Amino acid sequence: MLMKCPVFLLLDRSAAPSAAQKTDAMLLLRRCHGLTRFGRPSILRRHLGPAVLSHAARLSSTHDNKSDWHFSGFSWRHGLAGLLAGAGAVVAFGLQQHKAEQPAAAAQTTESISTLPVFSQEEVSKHRSLSDGVWVTYRGGVYDITEFVAMHPGGEKILLAAGGALEPFWALYAVHNQEHVLEILSEYKVGELCGEDLKKQEPTESSDPYSSDPERHPVLRINSQKPFNAEPPPEILTDSFITPSAVFFKRNHLPVPQVDPASYQLQVEGLPGGGVTFSLEDLKTRFPKHDVTATVQCAGNRRSEMDRVKQVKGLSWGISAISNAKWSGAKLRDVLLAAGYGPDVAQWARHVHFEGLDKDVTGAAYGASIPLNKAVSEEGDVLLAYEMNGEKIPPDHGFPVRVVVPGVVGARSVKWVGKIVVSAEESTSHWQQNDYKGFSPGTDWDTVDYKSAPAIQELPVQSAITSPADGALIDSSDGSVTVKGYAWSGGGREVVRVDVSLDGGQTWQVAQLRSSDEGQVPKAPPTPGRAWAWKLWELTAPLPPQVQELEIICKAVDSSYNVQPETFPPIWNLRGVLNNAWHRVTVKITEG
Amino acid sequence: MLMKCPVFLLLDRSAAPSAAQKTDAMLLLRRCHGLTRFGRPSILRRHLGPAVLSHAARLSSTHDNKSDWHFSGFSWRHGLAGLLAGAGAVVAFGLQQHKAEQPAAAAQTTESISTLPVFSQEEVSKHRSLSDGVWVTYRGGVYDITEFVAMHPGGEKILLAAGGALEPFWALYAVHNQEHVLEILSEYKVGELCGEDLKKQEPTESSDPYSSDPERHPVLRINSQKPFNAEPPPEILTDSFITPSAVFFKRNHLPVPQVDPASYQLQVEGLPGGGVTFSLEDLKTRFPKHDVTATVQCAGNRRSEMDRVKQVKGLSWGISAISNAKWSGAKLRDVLLAAGYGPDVAQWARHVHFEGLDKDVTGAAYGASIPLNKAVSEEGDVLLAYEMNGEKIPPDHGFPVRVVVPGVVGARSVKWVGKIVVSAEESTSHWQQNDYKGFSPGTDWDTVDYKSAPAIQELPVQSAITSPADGALIDSSDGSVTVKGYAWSGGGREVVRVDVSLDGGQTWQVAQLRSSDEGQVPKAPPTPGRAWAWKLWELTAPLPPQVQELEIICKAVDSSYNVQPETFPPIWNLRGVLNNAWHRVTVKITEG
Repeated sequence: MLMKCPVFLLLDRSAAPSAAQKTDAMLLLRRCHGLTRFGRPSILRRHLGPAVLSHAARLSSTHDNKSDWHFSGFSWRHGLAGLLAGAGAVVAFGLQQHKAEQPAAAAQTTESISTLPVFSQEEVSKHRSLSDGVWVTYRGGVYDITEFVAMHPGGEKILLAAGGALEPFWALYAVHNQEHVLEILSEYKVGELCGEDLKKQEPTESSDPYSSDPERHPVLRINSQKPFNAEPPPEILTDSFITPSAVFFKRNHLPVPQVDPASYQLQVEGLPGGGVTFSLEDLKTRFPKHDVTATVQCAGNRRSEMDRVKQVKGLSWGISAISNAKWSGAKLRDVLLAAGYGPDVAQWARHVHFEGLDKDVTGAAYGASIPLNKAVSEEGDVLLAYEMNGEKIPPDHGFPVRVVVPGVVGARSVKWVGKIVVSAEESTSHWQQNDYKGFSPGTDWDTVDYKSAPAIQELPVQSAITSPADGALIDSSDGSVTVKGYAWSGGGREVVRVDVSLDGGQTWQVAQLRSSDEGQVPKAPPTPGRAWAWKLWELTAPLPPQVQELEIICKAVDSSYNVQPETFPPIWNLRGVLNNAWHRVTVKITEG
Repeated sequence: MLMKCPVFLLLDRSAAPSAAQKTDAMLLLRRCHGLTRFGRPSILRRHLGPAVLSHAARLSSTHDNKSDWHFSGFSWRHGLAGLLAGAGAVVAFGLQQHKAEQPAAAAQTTESISTLPVFSQEEVSKHRSLSDGVWVTYRGGVYDITEFVAMHPGGEKILLAAGGALEPFWALYAVHNQEHVLEILSEYKVGELCGEDLKKQEPTESSDPYSSDPERHPVLRINSQKPFNAEPPPEILTDSFITPSAVFFKRNHLPVPQVDPASYQLQVEGLPGGGVTFSLEDLKTRFPKHDVTATVQCAGNRRSEMDRVKQVKGLSWGISAISNAKWSGAKLRDVLLAAGYGPDVAQWARHVHFEGLDKDVTGAAYGASIPLNKAVSEEGDVLLAYEMNGEKIPPDHGFPVRVVVPGVVGARSVKWVGKIVVSAEESTSHWQQNDYKGFSPGTDWDTVDYKSAPAIQELPVQSAITSPADGALIDSSDGSVTVKGYAWSGGGREVVRVDVSLDGGQTWQVAQLRSSDEGQVPKAPPTPGRAWAWKLWELTAPLPPQVQELEIICKAVDSSYNVQPETFPPIWNLRGVLNNAWHRVTVKITEG
């Protein structure tokens, strides 16, 4: 059997290697191995086969000592780093053209070995770690990929699929949809999944109100199943500037409603002349279509960190209840103007309410409101969106139409919006009046007065470290550490700087900020007050000498020069919202 | 003759140097020389005299090898770089206490050397460049300062005085009015100005550009006399919701211009159809008069607290470089529309510049710009104000017309505005490009890149305790303590809560907020994003039993739920701006 460095997948196969090329190939393979930094070291137990040597030889014969290694216009170091970044791989190297699944190749692979043992899903599920072995299933086959983990270009992200099916992950990361990947996989095949369990992998049905909830990507970390609330693992969150819809955090308050787009009607009320309704077709054809790239963040993002100070009430979100998408639709302003909004209404109206089509058992809908000036301002950029990342909005995100209120807490971007009401008063919804508000650390459940605090609208400046993970091991032989993360602020305030400390806040270095994916042309800077999208950031810095451990911290500064507070206790609040203290991870330095 | 590094001006003179100290001094002098980056390199032709060695020795005996050189809490590198920044030198190091001119010292210096040749003004005027030599006159003496140019803390600005009298420049930059400066100057003396030419200068000498500055209220705490910068004592700052104009903090960059209201003309440029001018009468009669109650804060408010962490450059403001007034005038938006602003202009324009009628000796005006969308938005509330608190604007605050940019750093509310320019670019003014920006705590004068940071516009959330004062005695017999202060945030974000701690931040209580004077009917809450005025706040709380001392802290939360950072070190920046860490005062409890 052959152990392959997956980087070779990118190479053509041809030409027999020379002896010198074989030596080079060995070095390259080791380097490749060393670069799989998330994986724990594993030992090369198998021999290098001729195919690997052939690829590596081609690689070494074209490399350029003066800079990065290049072949066919591809930069080895950049490319590999891209692959290592996981979801980023989707867009790397133009591989996205290989999007279609390749059942033929898969079938071929499966057919070629047919006398292996049959395993139950239960048995497969027991193999979820390097110590228990890492097993996965794919199209009815069972694969023991334990030894491949350390070589996976996406690092330990592969463990997210451990004990279950690969399909949902490969659907997300289209780089896998290649013949070479299937060839590699076939070499790890240890058995077949029993027919019954294979059938179970198909969607379940029942009469529960959540039975119509859509299937979700298994990579999501579920905080609550019903209603469904889940976030992507931090290590994939910042793989791309635009978060793929499948892994965009999900925050549902109620079951996902089934909405027929053909009969969908949006009611607009509170304006002179009575109510007006718009069909989906109306929204698409009667109003200009606007694209707005906007980050949405849950008020409870990073609640788990505040919870460690003193218990709070709410879903235990990590750092990934935030995501960034391109939303497209009609401007709310345009729709309100078409429905009768004008200067007369501006005299008395102060708020715009949104009601979702998602309802609780009493028939009450999810609801929220935003200030009128945000709703009607040309620069407010509030959308009635019918597309997310260039496709119709997925059910979990509000199909067929949702509100997107850029710069504002996610709770106001009402999904499955069915009704809009222009009003002199705020929404009376529970979520507007008795939730999503901030209080003093001294306020407890005995003293809280929800009327004393304003409903959260714009969010404060935020940032977090997505890599390395807390507790990660950093190989000191690299001599440097790369820290990555996101930063965002509410109210359209652009993040202007992210400071990173490797010594618990004693000294600070300034990170590089990005407003697009690596290699893409950066967009023009946004108009002041309309910076709706997050910034991704990165800092590579020398490892301080002689340290065994680093406390890495990030803190962002926005265009109003607001900053994040240092610690959680002074911003602690009983609902665990607005968790924007400095994010800290501690990593250990190991000798490589 | 002796060549001095001007940094030594900051040192006391005493103690004879050792041989080792002399060597150190040589090195320091070279370093000092190297740091005078604006000057062209010049060669040390003269010998070091004992006075320099004495200074340098003191310096070297206290320097810290691990970081920058420090003495008496002053960082050598930062300080020198600060001085090098030019006009900013006016405000460096609290030197403003040496405000009064010192003719006695000058006379003394002049008298001590009396047998030098006599030069005519014509001869002096021939020395205006480094190649021809740089000569200046001062109080009848002629000085060849060619070699000093490279070491001048204010950089090549010194050349503005070449061939002429120093007096007008020193009158403008009062930092020169010190004995040490005169001592340095004396060492470059090469002759006397002939009596006739000296007489001709007399009108110049007496024409102090600040001689027309208005009288000020004696209660003000003066941070700099020329230009005039002063703040009210904290204990009167929050006596009223509207700050009386007489005690409203004053922040002038240049002499107060004398403007005749009858001939005043506001030029508006950059719009289609060429320039338009408006008289004061035009502004009053052609446009609706709007009242806006807005707080103005200097970027350097509370700089003295940041300075305690590590020295920063700038006026040593306490907590009162902030005040609140009712401003009345025409909306900038209305004036721009009348001058030709419209959708076509919005296609290309991005900024609106303001130029003051206050000018430096070269004729350069104070200037700044704001983003176009702030300037033209109906909700931006930018005024061309001709009234302050119901009366014509006092000279110190911009008579007859000033800009008021609510929610934005005071530096953009240009006083004595004479010109407005609509532009695709930001103002190129020193104060827009090379001042009033924030940097990371890790950025020092060697690494600072002013282009890397955005000009401060909206300010972050702020609050401070105006009573009790730090160090105050509290009579325990009352059984309670009353704490008062102000809170404000930039960008029209309303302060929604002020938390007060009496125990150094362990526990917090919520203060009462006020938007008007006590006994007055509170105004309706502002529209979201248009809360331009501060809140006054107050908390009366029982004295904790058995304590001898309280550390009282306040921290504010604004409507975007941004909060103040806990301490100064993480927001420290070399210019000492954006000082919004928690405000802390320590009081002692006495038995009544």
